[in-house]
Amino acid sequence: MKTKTKTKTKTKTKTKIDPSDHWVRPGEKVDLAQRPTKVKSVYDSKKAYKKMLERRVEELSDLQRLHYASNKHSLLLVFQAMDAAGKDGAIRHVMSGVNPQGCQVFSFKQPSTEEREHDFLWRTNKRLPERGRIGIFNRSYYEEVLIARVHPELFRGQGLPDDGIAGHAIWDERFRSITEMEAHLHRSGTRVIKFFLHLSKEEQRERFLARIDEPDKNWKFSVADVEERQHWDGYMRAYEACLSATSTKASPWYVIPADDKKNARLLISQVVVDALKDLKMSYPKVSAARRKELLKLREQL
Amino acid sequence: MKTKTKTKTKTKTKTKIDPSDHWVRPGEKVDLAQRPTKVKSVYDSKKAYKKMLERRVEELSDLQRLHYASNKHSLLLVFQAMDAAGKDGAIRHVMSGVNPQGCQVFSFKQPSTEEREHDFLWRTNKRLPERGRIGIFNRSYYEEVLIARVHPELFRGQGLPDDGIAGHAIWDERFRSITEMEAHLHRSGTRVIKFFLHLSKEEQRERFLARIDEPDKNWKFSVADVEERQHWDGYMRAYEACLSATSTKASPWYVIPADDKKNARLLISQVVVDALKDLKMSYPKVSAARRKELLKLREQL
Repeated sequence: MKTKTKTKTKTKTKTKIDPSDHWVRPGEKVDLAQRPTKVKSVYDSKKAYKKMLERRVEELSDLQRLHYASNKHSLLLVFQAMDAAGKDGAIRHVMSGVNPQGCQVFSFKQPSTEEREHDFLWRTNKRLPERGRIGIFNRSYYEEVLIARVHPELFRGQGLPDDGIAGHAIWDERFRSITEMEAHLHRSGTRVIKFFLHLSKEEQRERFLARIDEPDKNWKFSVADVEERQHWDGYMRAYEACLSATSTKASPWYVIPADDKKNARLLISQVVVDALKDLKMSYPKVSAARRKELLKLREQL
Repeated sequence: MKTKTKTKTKTKTKTKIDPSDHWVRPGEKVDLAQRPTKVKSVYDSKKAYKKMLERRVEELSDLQRLHYASNKHSLLLVFQAMDAAGKDGAIRHVMSGVNPQGCQVFSFKQPSTEEREHDFLWRTNKRLPERGRIGIFNRSYYEEVLIARVHPELFRGQGLPDDGIAGHAIWDERFRSITEMEAHLHRSGTRVIKFFLHLSKEEQRERFLARIDEPDKNWKFSVADVEERQHWDGYMRAYEACLSATSTKASPWYVIPADDKKNARLLISQVVVDALKDLKMSYPKVSAARRKELLKLREQL
C-alpha cells in the first residue's frame, strides 16, 4: 500500500475509533433496550468528522485495490435497519471512494414472483460478490426472519409445504439455514459482516417529520413507513432473536448506534477497514513452484 | 389422479420394482466393490421392459401434473456417474413423458470464469427448480468433491484462500456445505434425490469400443474419456467418500446398477414415482379460513 504523506498533518484530530463495543458476541442474548442508539461521538466537530471519514475512505480505497488484485477473498456487507436509520447514506458515504468495478450494491425490496417460487436464500445467493469484490446488501436474506416474522401474512404467501415445516420451529430452522450458508461462504473465502443500524423510535419520528416538512425529502416518505412504525416492538423482538442466533465469530453482527448518522458512518467505515486488513492480503506473489513452471515455459518460447 | 383402465390388461407382466436395496443408508460406509453393477433384471423381455417403463412414465406424468398444480414442493434429481454409464439415456427415457413446462434439465460441464469466481455451490444454486417443478442436474455440485478430488490441479484453479482452508479438512467441509444446503432445501420444500449410476470398468470398456466401432456413436467419444478411465480407482474412492458422507434420510443417494441400461431406467423411474407419491400431494383445496376470506370478499363485490 502506498504511504499517505497527508496523514502527518492530521495528527491533532482524534483518530482512534474502536467499534468492538458494538460487536455481538456469538451466543450472546441481545437485549436492544440495553444497547445504545446514541454514544459519545468519536469526532469532535463536523470538520473533524469529514477529515476522519475521508481518511477511512482513502484507506478503504487502497485496501479494496489490494483486495481486487489479490483475488482471494470476497467481502459481503449486510445492512439491516428500521426505516430512516440511514442505511443508504451510510453506504453512499462509506463506499463512495471505492472503485465501482470492485464493489456491487444490491437492494432487496419485495421479492418477485420468480423469487417467491424458490427457497428464501435463492435470490440473494445469485447476487453474492465475486472473488476480489465487495458486495453490499441493502436489506438481505435477513428480511425473511424479520419482516416475515412481524407480518405472518407475508410469510404465508411463500407457499411453503404445510406438513409441519411451517410450524413453530421455522425461525430456528431459518437461522440454521442462514448460519450454515454463511459458514459455507466463509470456507469459500467470503467474509460476511452484518450491520444493524440501531435507531431510537424518537429519532425515527424526527426523521419522518423532516421527510414531511422538507419538500426535498418528500420522495423518501411513504404512508407504509408510518404503518410499519406501529410494529416497532415486534421488529425489535424479531431483531433480538435474529442477532442472538446468527452472530458468529466468522460472520459477526455489529449493532451500530444510529441516532447520530455521522458517528454511525465512522464506526461502520472502521469495521470495514479492519475486516479488509484482517484478510492479510498481499499483491499476488509468485511461489517457488510457479516460478519453476514459468522457467519451464520460458524454454518453450 | 385419473384411474388408468389400461393397467388391468397388463397384469401378466411382472410389475413389482423395489429399489430400496440400492438406497445408501445415512451414515453407511459405502464400499462400491460390494455394490453390484448388475443385478437380476426386473423385466423378463425387451417387450416387458417397454411396457413397464411406459407405465412408469405415465404414472410419472400424472404425478407431475399434480405436483405442478399443488405447487408446494420441488423435486431435484441429481445424476452422477462415470462416462458412458447412461445418465443421458436414463434422463431421456424416464422423463420423456413429462410436460416440459414442469421439468427443467441442466447439464453442468466445465465451470465458466464467472462461476469459478464464486463459491462452489453458486452455479447450481441458480438453477434450482421452482416450486411445482422437477429439476434434473446432469452432473452437479457433486463434481466439486469428485473430479476436483481426483484432479487436484482443477481444484487449485478455483482460487480459494490458502490460509489452511484448502488443507486436508476441505472434503469434510465441502460435504458439510452440501448436506446443510440440501437440508435447507428440504426445509424449503425441495426433495432432493441423488442417483449414482454404478457401472463396471469392463462395461465402460465395451461401451467405449462401441462408440469407436459404430460411426453413429463416434460423436459421443473423446480422447479425454480414455484418459479419465486411468483414474478409475481414484474416482471410486472419491465416490465412496461422497456417498458415505452425503446420503441423508431427507436427501438420499441411490447406487443404481448400471451395466444393464434398461434395468437402471426402471429402477430410477420407480424411485422418482415413489418420491413424488411420498409428497402426499393433492390438487389445491380451499381451507376453512380461506373459504371465510372468500365469503368476505364476496360481500365486497
